[in-house]
Amino acid sequence: MSDLFFEPLSRDAASSARLGRLHTGHGVVETPVFMPVGTQATVKGLMPDQLRGIGVQMVLANTFHLALRPGSQTVAALGGLHTLMGWDRPILTDSGGFQVFSLADRVKIADEAATFQSHIDGSTVQLTPERAVQIQEELGADIIMCLDECPAHITDRELLRAAVHRTTLWAKRCRAVHGRTDQALFGIVQGGVDLELRAQSATALQQLDFPGYAVGGLSVGESHGEMLQVLDATVPLLPDDRPRYLMGVGRPQDILEAVARGIDMFDCVLPTRNGRNAMAFTAGGVLRLRNAEHQRSAEPVEAGCPCPACCRFSRGYIRHLFQANEMLGPILLSLHNVSFFMRMMAQIRTAIAAGTFASYRRDALARLGP
Amino acid sequence: MSDLFFEPLSRDAASSARLGRLHTGHGVVETPVFMPVGTQATVKGLMPDQLRGIGVQMVLANTFHLALRPGSQTVAALGGLHTLMGWDRPILTDSGGFQVFSLADRVKIADEAATFQSHIDGSTVQLTPERAVQIQEELGADIIMCLDECPAHITDRELLRAAVHRTTLWAKRCRAVHGRTDQALFGIVQGGVDLELRAQSATALQQLDFPGYAVGGLSVGESHGEMLQVLDATVPLLPDDRPRYLMGVGRPQDILEAVARGIDMFDCVLPTRNGRNAMAFTAGGVLRLRNAEHQRSAEPVEAGCPCPACCRFSRGYIRHLFQANEMLGPILLSLHNVSFFMRMMAQIRTAIAAGTFASYRRDALARLGP
Repeated sequence: MSDLFFEPLSRDAASSARLGRLHTGHGVVETPVFMPVGTQATVKGLMPDQLRGIGVQMVLANTFHLALRPGSQTVAALGGLHTLMGWDRPILTDSGGFQVFSLADRVKIADEAATFQSHIDGSTVQLTPERAVQIQEELGADIIMCLDECPAHITDRELLRAAVHRTTLWAKRCRAVHGRTDQALFGIVQGGVDLELRAQSATALQQLDFPGYAVGGLSVGESHGEMLQVLDATVPLLPDDRPRYLMGVGRPQDILEAVARGIDMFDCVLPTRNGRNAMAFTAGGVLRLRNAEHQRSAEPVEAGCPCPACCRFSRGYIRHLFQANEMLGPILLSLHNVSFFMRMMAQIRTAIAAGTFASYRRDALARLGP
Repeated sequence: MSDLFFEPLSRDAASSARLGRLHTGHGVVETPVFMPVGTQATVKGLMPDQLRGIGVQMVLANTFHLALRPGSQTVAALGGLHTLMGWDRPILTDSGGFQVFSLADRVKIADEAATFQSHIDGSTVQLTPERAVQIQEELGADIIMCLDECPAHITDRELLRAAVHRTTLWAKRCRAVHGRTDQALFGIVQGGVDLELRAQSATALQQLDFPGYAVGGLSVGESHGEMLQVLDATVPLLPDDRPRYLMGVGRPQDILEAVARGIDMFDCVLPTRNGRNAMAFTAGGVLRLRNAEHQRSAEPVEAGCPCPACCRFSRGYIRHLFQANEMLGPILLSLHNVSFFMRMMAQIRTAIAAGTFASYRRDALARLGP
């Protein structure tokens, strides 16, 4: 078993929302937590100091991308991900499974391995469960993920069933070879929007006694309602004393609902990707900074926001930066958006602790809009 | 006359290098000073806090670009350049003359005005000396520049003579309409590499009693030696109690030689442009971070450099960022390069104060290489 442990603190009376602490070799993470995504060992456009300054506790990096470039051995030679990125707080790496199925070319999948073509140099790459663990051990994150089969949003039950079967098989093999006790290896529940398959997947994985469990394969085309149904059917089957991680989700609305269903951890590219596209998250919904209405607006992106973008710069300036194709536009809105997610998570934790999560969730959802 | 004044402090015994202070409404600038370029009201990729952190005293913004987008009235409506950029230290704006002649399409020039086509929307723009001053008054920098005619590197003496004549004419007209006493208006010496025309230009401008003087029209194709000859012939003709600004120059080698010839102020895009292209300035010359030799290098870009890029990140990581086309690569090398220029200027000032500028200059040039 790994050194990581999850300390449940308190639970909401009206929902499955819970407050906890994740103890890792790089410090304690207060949950529910949102992890900004540093795909290629950098949260796009932001310095580690800036991430710390807006309260980021933990970041995610992508095994798929880093394995192809610069290569996990290069990362290891440079001291591992924490040293490489200049980030001394916890890091989670995914297994690469999701990217293989969503990004790679000429994917062939068999029980033994997933084979695909590198988008960097065209070479053929074979990813086995054992190799996924080895790469993640070389990268050196605090939490690493089992290789899973993550099919696109499909309703073919036989395909889904095969993916769940293979994901369980691969989870066993990952578990068998994982050696670093300073890393926690999480299992990933699959099963698409088929609730019976989700239950089978969760039950099978639980028997492998992972230090944490993820719900994977969501945010791939299903509706908000379908996602919530999956969580309703899956989370109660996961052990109460282990952290639960909803992979790749999501929108503030999704997070509020998933927290209410007992999820502790989130990651998503939305704050940085939308930031690069001139879209700002605010408590009142999304703001499009390229719109002409902002041209002479001296208002900050979000009144009362303590982030460096809102403290010092106007909507008019940020609009100008985007119109002029200046890097500082994406930087400032990424900073604001990540800060928005951090503030929302802090508010969620405060509300759970204070016993006011139900009203916080209702009010926040009403303000955010659809 | 403007509120700005120049306070000469001490002079090198062996050269014309001098130490001084520039007093502006936004604080005191120690000279010789290097101004990073914030073309579109942002030093590309860097936050004002980061600029302050590495010792930037003053930045330059481009009138030409800002007049076309977002427009000087929009800048004024948003509180002027300092408020817009979140930069409370001094700012200098150029007049747009250089960009009209180097960037614009269908340029027509007459004594009355320079006319060209906007690269943003194709509209026809007329820039008169009066308009150049008005735009710069709306932008609100601490130091503004007369509109000048800045022909490309030419040897046709009649064309150069006409440009000098027109630049003097325009300087008079700028002087006549400039009203803001919290801004200093500088004159610009032209004349290409024709030393006699340079002398004529300097003498004619001096009679207009500007609070500062610039040497323009260099770094446009002439050799290093030609540039130094122009400085040798021009600077002694400029008044000793006014700051002297060498526009758009340059390389560390150029700066060391220009300081020795009595120049107090510099601006150049090199630190940020080269940073975006994976080239790092170091005391030992330029480092190309895309080179494969850096792949597994745990060394900082420059040993002993106190900048945030060198304190926390390796050459191997920065190479990875450039290979992966990540914004953080340009950000980190821009930060390092601007920091390198700031440190060099601080060393120059220290050496002048200590009476060791001659040996500092010799050693620095030897280390930098050609």
